[in-house]
Amino acid sequence: MSGESKVIKCSNYQWDSVARKEYKDDTSCYKGVHRYSLLGEQPDEQALTFQTRYFEVEAGGYTSFEYHRHPHSVIIIRGSGTVILDDSLHELSLHDVVYIAPETLHQFHADRGEKLGFLCVVNRYRDRPTLPDQDAIADQIESADVLEKIRQ
Amino acid sequence: MSGESKVIKCSNYQWDSVARKEYKDDTSCYKGVHRYSLLGEQPDEQALTFQTRYFEVEAGGYTSFEYHRHPHSVIIIRGSGTVILDDSLHELSLHDVVYIAPETLHQFHADRGEKLGFLCVVNRYRDRPTLPDQDAIADQIESADVLEKIRQ
Repeated sequence: MSGESKVIKCSNYQWDSVARKEYKDDTSCYKGVHRYSLLGEQPDEQALTFQTRYFEVEAGGYTSFEYHRHPHSVIIIRGSGTVILDDSLHELSLHDVVYIAPETLHQFHADRGEKLGFLCVVNRYRDRPTLPDQDAIADQIESADVLEKIRQ
Repeated sequence: MSGESKVIKCSNYQWDSVARKEYKDDTSCYKGVHRYSLLGEQPDEQALTFQTRYFEVEAGGYTSFEYHRHPHSVIIIRGSGTVILDDSLHELSLHDVVYIAPETLHQFHADRGEKLGFLCVVNRYRDRPTLPDQDAIADQIESADVLEKIRQ
């Protein structure tokens, strides 16, 4: 179904009719992250080949450290933070864009004393993320800065 | 090619290595609009099934009045304005989300005395827009407010 065109109003990072949800079912692999599904998941939005979500990380929180075959298109729309991309750390501020290529180990941190909020667009059909075990991390990550940053 | 992960830094709505381009080749059907291709068009970003673009409309400007089979996922990240969706007008402000369903006649206006900037994500494979002629507009638009708003 292609559905009807619509405007979803926003006020202070809360969207009408969009629920604030826990980031993942398994709450042990992240800290202080919520998920808002903005477009592409509803039955009347299936003409989109992708899904637009907003994630908000509380100050001091982080997303799961993971990898998968599908890529991410990310844009920061609130606050600042840091992202791990394999063996490197990148500072993030407002409107920075992040391309996360397939198989890249990644993790977002709200480590600047404020919330970090970002849009993350993904292909509709995609694989589930994998959390690397300690051996995989030891094999793939050499940077001491990154190893110190990883939270699991 | 799936390419390498990367961060594209932004400062005041200008992104490193991202060109500011005219919105369309045919400059007669819009006013004061520029286009920034953020992700999904480069050869090393082809793992994405979609493209993320940023459009900025100068105060007093407007996009082309058009329709097409592919849908749009839009989120406002600068300023405010108005969007025409078929027979209705909708005010837009920061972080509002717009779903433009297939075949919907639409046009964005920066009509509040400030710039209107929005992310627009589209399926990679999509049809080209069609500009309706006067007969098509007369057939499809009944609202006097919308008819008054349309710029061509």
